[in-house]
Amino acid sequence: MNTDWIPTRPIWLAPDDKTVQVIDQRRLPHELVVMDIENEDDAIRAISEMVVRGAPLIGVTGAYAVYLAAVRAAADPDPEGRFKRACERIKAARPTAVNLVWAVDRVQSAALRLAPEARAEAAKKEAARIAEEEAENCRMIGRHGLSLIEEIQKTKAAGPVNLLTHCNAGWLACVEYGTATAPMYAAFEAGIDIHVWVDETRPLNQGSRLTAWELGRRGIPHTVVADNAGGHLMQHGMVDLVIVGTDRTTGTGDVANKIGTYLKALAAADNKVPFYVALPSSTFDWGLTDGVSQIPIEERNSEEIRYVQGLCDGQVLSVLVPPSDSPVVNYAFDVTPARLVTGFITERGICRATAEDIRRLFPEKIA
Amino acid sequence: MNTDWIPTRPIWLAPDDKTVQVIDQRRLPHELVVMDIENEDDAIRAISEMVVRGAPLIGVTGAYAVYLAAVRAAADPDPEGRFKRACERIKAARPTAVNLVWAVDRVQSAALRLAPEARAEAAKKEAARIAEEEAENCRMIGRHGLSLIEEIQKTKAAGPVNLLTHCNAGWLACVEYGTATAPMYAAFEAGIDIHVWVDETRPLNQGSRLTAWELGRRGIPHTVVADNAGGHLMQHGMVDLVIVGTDRTTGTGDVANKIGTYLKALAAADNKVPFYVALPSSTFDWGLTDGVSQIPIEERNSEEIRYVQGLCDGQVLSVLVPPSDSPVVNYAFDVTPARLVTGFITERGICRATAEDIRRLFPEKIA
Repeated sequence: MNTDWIPTRPIWLAPDDKTVQVIDQRRLPHELVVMDIENEDDAIRAISEMVVRGAPLIGVTGAYAVYLAAVRAAADPDPEGRFKRACERIKAARPTAVNLVWAVDRVQSAALRLAPEARAEAAKKEAARIAEEEAENCRMIGRHGLSLIEEIQKTKAAGPVNLLTHCNAGWLACVEYGTATAPMYAAFEAGIDIHVWVDETRPLNQGSRLTAWELGRRGIPHTVVADNAGGHLMQHGMVDLVIVGTDRTTGTGDVANKIGTYLKALAAADNKVPFYVALPSSTFDWGLTDGVSQIPIEERNSEEIRYVQGLCDGQVLSVLVPPSDSPVVNYAFDVTPARLVTGFITERGICRATAEDIRRLFPEKIA
Repeated sequence: MNTDWIPTRPIWLAPDDKTVQVIDQRRLPHELVVMDIENEDDAIRAISEMVVRGAPLIGVTGAYAVYLAAVRAAADPDPEGRFKRACERIKAARPTAVNLVWAVDRVQSAALRLAPEARAEAAKKEAARIAEEEAENCRMIGRHGLSLIEEIQKTKAAGPVNLLTHCNAGWLACVEYGTATAPMYAAFEAGIDIHVWVDETRPLNQGSRLTAWELGRRGIPHTVVADNAGGHLMQHGMVDLVIVGTDRTTGTGDVANKIGTYLKALAAADNKVPFYVALPSSTFDWGLTDGVSQIPIEERNSEEIRYVQGLCDGQVLSVLVPPSDSPVVNYAFDVTPARLVTGFITERGICRATAEDIRRLFPEKIA
């Protein structure tokens, strides 16, 4: 591990133009390892095993997977059939992320407009375009979210603006800037005194492993807390603003995000702390109207709860916490009803969590 | 570790009558180790380092510590001064547990009524009396709580009664039966089909390490979940009843308990799931009227969050999870306001979480 190198993107195309490289996020923060993705099977594994995670990054990885699938399909006796089957398999790699289906469909369509031999090049360009759009979306989310933080700063007599976030919706989850973290980076760069409470985010500890690592590398003051602590912090006025990301949000404002988000939204509502969700509009699933009943919640391997990974004597190990014979269930997401969401921070600006307000910002999405 | 031996109490006086023995709860579930407590310093360490934990058990350990202090003080040139100073030190071993102060004061008073040479014997008897009272209190909590579970069972067309608990308020935290678990044990013994969702309970994982171990040893169906999962479970009708313990409860019904309890109470209220707190009346701090402002919240060592302990290749190890340079804060408790508590299950029966109802059950406590 090269400790001097601080990347700012979690995915890129290698100079050979045939290999996609990603940061293996399972090994952070103690090891910074780059993984090569040579074909769509590697990409599917990287998505399902959470080498890459976070809705926008899953989308971009899926987009590049379509490119790699197009390269391989071109040499197949049935290029179109093989390509389409590969795209279906890529879309099934993670059930919750709407960005994955969206990105794969978009790259697939761009490729299928052309003859088999031209598809790979078209797919590569379309994947790169999605990556750049995601980066730009996050930059704009940061710009709009900054205004919220500036407003809070004006009302504070002393001390930093205290933010709280759950999971990792940082640049590691996106392409650059992050979604929930983009306003934090923007505020920090604007010289505003901020401090971020970072939920550990069990079971995979994306908060303590990834968000803390991201913020620490940029020098942003932060404190890791147990997921259980957020209610106490808000009860005692120690949180000015909650910002989280989302994996899928209905057109009516219900937010699917990492398990535990709903509990923080309840605490925020109970203590009148503003609760914002930062997202690029690609995360809206426009046709859905009831998140709790319509968004399927991924149940992941129980080993993710049983075993906790960390550093011991210079080695990254996993330790078993509960009794080996106790059953464990691992729901990966929950849904926060729109009524608990103060607003959305999108690439086009901020809106309230109502169908009307969301569609005012994205009028072209009205069916 | 003798895997055949399944203890039912976490503390007892050794046959030599001079050594208190406790189960070292830091090493469960992977190792069942008994620790000898020879004097009050050992006892203070056992309490502050959480060899023993849980409000009733902390009280009983404190009571026996007073006995051990009386033995040592009897040989001191200033027996009374030494004894009183020791009692003060014992009371300071954990800040949140009101039972500790209550039990120490009670044993101390019983001893101080007598001449120095008679104090140890009197303290021993009083400590044993407290232990037996706690066991009996828990038995009665189980009996009263059973009626709640029976009522729910009647309303269910099919499937088990699903309970959820946070932390460990089991026999490991008490003397026998437990507080929150007593109704579960009583229901299971009465042949009611129950299933318990066990919150891991970060940072020390008392749920996945201790409650899962307790329930598993008795054959009670249970499933370990991340602390983050409770809201999702309740949203989807998978929880019929929440029962938790408490470390300190105001006379007006505000409940200090393991950090994260408040978040579960919010989710229960939002989903109309009954939320009960099981406690012996020794846990009421009658003079307090506002838990959030009056109950000091213990801030424990951040290493408890940084390091997670578990089994790796047959060895119990601790692994570091967050980046080594990220600050971490460890608030150990939070306060659930009475308005979120459906009721209390006490040794005298069930009451609502209002000052009036609590005092109706304990009229002698009216100031």
